Amino acid sequence: MRALVVVTGGTFDKEYDELRGTLSFRKTHLPEMLALGRCRLETRVLELMMKDSLNMTSADRKRILAACRRSPESRVVITHGTDTMTETAAALGRAGLPGKTVVLTGAMRPYRFGSSDGLFNLGSALSFAQALPPGVYVAMNGLVFSWDDVKKDRRLGVFKRQKTHG
Amino acid sequence: MRALVVVTGGTFDKEYDELRGTLSFRKTHLPEMLALGRCRLETRVLELMMKDSLNMTSADRKRILAACRRSPESRVVITHGTDTMTETAAALGRAGLPGKTVVLTGAMRPYRFGSSDGLFNLGSALSFAQALPPGVYVAMNGLVFSWDDVKKDRRLGVFKRQKTHG
Amino acid sequence: MRALVVVTGGTFDKEYDELRGTLSFRKTHLPEMLALGRCRLETRVLELMMKDSLNMTSADRKRILAACRRSPESRVVITHGTDTMTETAAALGRAGLPGKTVVLTGAMRPYRFGSSDGLFNLGSALSFAQALPPGVYVAMNGLVFSWDDVKKDRRLGVFKRQKTHG
Amino acid sequence: MRALVVVTGGTFDKEYDELRGTLSFRKTHLPEMLALGRCRLETRVLELMMKDSLNMTSADRKRILAACRRSPESRVVITHGTDTMTETAAALGRAGLPGKTVVLTGAMRPYRFGSSDGLFNLGSALSFAQALPPGVYVAMNGLVFSWDDVKKDRRLGVFKRQKTHG
Repeated sequence: MRALVVVTGGTFDKEYDELRGTLSFRKTHLPEMLALGRCRLETRVLELMMKDSLNMTSADRKRILAACRRSPESRVVITHGTDTMTETAAALGRAGLPGKTVVLTGAMRPYRFGSSDGLFNLGSALSFAQALPPGVYVAMNGLVFSWDDVKKDRRLGVFKRQKTHG
Repeated sequence: MRALVVVTGGTFDKEYDELRGTLSFRKTHLPEMLALGRCRLETRVLELMMKDSLNMTSADRKRILAACRRSPESRVVITHGTDTMTETAAALGRAGLPGKTVVLTGAMRPYRFGSSDGLFNLGSALSFAQALPPGVYVAMNGLVFSWDDVKKDRRLGVFKRQKTHG
Repeated sequence: MRALVVVTGGTFDKEYDELRGTLSFRKTHLPEMLALGRCRLETRVLELMMKDSLNMTSADRKRILAACRRSPESRVVITHGTDTMTETAAALGRAGLPGKTVVLTGAMRPYRFGSSDGLFNLGSALSFAQALPPGVYVAMNGLVFSWDDVKKDRRLGVFKRQKTHG
Repeated sequence: MRALVVVTGGTFDKEYDELRGTLSFRKTHLPEMLALGRCRLETRVLELMMKDSLNMTSADRKRILAACRRSPESRVVITHGTDTMTETAAALGRAGLPGKTVVLTGAMRPYRFGSSDGLFNLGSALSFAQALPPGVYVAMNGLVFSWDDVKKDRRLGVFKRQKTHG
């Protein structure tokens, strides 16, 4: 089994720019994280964009959809900013990706800052991507949600089912 | 959905004893790791033993089996030393745990030592435990193996399918 | 020998605010860092302010001077943002702190983000504070500079002697 | 000013051997640590040996003395296991190294294991090496001791003055 990892940025890959004292993006850390996890699942990492998801446009979401559509892999993980992850998941879910298991994940704390949830979420998402039937999902906080039943609780910084309190 | 995490020790939880300059076990770090992953899956952590798996006996394995048998949870993750993880998996698989999805995982590098695969494996195992049908599995290196089709490649320090080169 | 550590903020103590996705200040990490260094030098930590040094005013600098003046300790370390550290050092140097060895230090990368120079600089500054004669100094990059012979090279993000290329 | 860093091993540089599950030595991490500290003091790193100091012999100590003797640098830091650091300091102190400031330091927790005192001690030792007059010293726990007035308190894992309780 092979998986495609589509990198779009988000807190997952945020960096601290020492000279400016601000947050920024550079190259993705996904290959380094897969190595840290000693991941032996064959993966292809595609760095599509490096964006804070608050700045994502529908053009960006179309590009993500296209990357998923044309991938030979039927298992896809998308790393994404948590702020609009559910919107991208909905865009993909409504468009439809038949035969493909697509799992979006992100991080609340940048991988490079230590004490990050990034590695945990990456392991989680890659596993759900292998085990679940075709569909579009969000994997955060050790749980998995269908694209049409998830929202981000911005006060607590966690993901929950939309249809119930859960 | 609730999961039981049975802690048996292994490299996952190894510590560095500063006064002696040696490796040792103290309390499990599982709760801390679940907090780091911002895990919102309801979990019960049961610290059954803290052993290097090279020192595990069949009595130990019987205790692990008993803990799985009596658990109300149908989803179980067992953290375990990697050296004899496949033996424990086989003992559980042969005994049978009907209706339960049991996933064994471990780490090649202690969680407390930085650059560990522990968090990645924990996220992976908790996800496979939720998504897979009843059975006994080993989750390592981002992959999942059935208990009767896995071995540890000691030279490379990775897990592979037993029946093929994989 | 006792030392006073005056905390004024800066990159040393910056935090990542997960809910907003921005950088922020909370409580100082100095006590935690001193514990990590197993520091047995008696120290008193005084959290005077938590400011990005670009936002420091002369009123702030007067408060820092006053804290140094009234301290019973003759050895003082001041943690400070690197952007205007040399200005604060000059303000203290010109005012004069007879009988006191005052060493300013900071970090280019927040302590909490991993891979930080913070611990190294803290060990360095505490040591220079104990070993040097009275005066006002800046300790960065493993070196020590007199307050009237130091500048920050903003392009490289390092500190150099002002009077020569160094 | 230039400094020589003589590496002899000790907990400072200990590694975790994943395949054997034991502690071991590989190459020194000193260059990496100096880079992390953004150290701009010119340093020459000499990896003389990589030993647990419990295994040091008088032949080893003679080699360390010889390396200090022949170095063009008058400022020397020696990284060393903490168990017999005071013995090596005494051997150097008794032999005498006129015109040279030699500072021994180590770590209670390996640098590579996270939460280490290594970086703090390295910054401390490099600073004392620059600021102190010629002599042989031990720098641990943020303090500096003359070679003839220091002992390791093995119960607490800290260094203290030998002549008083201090």
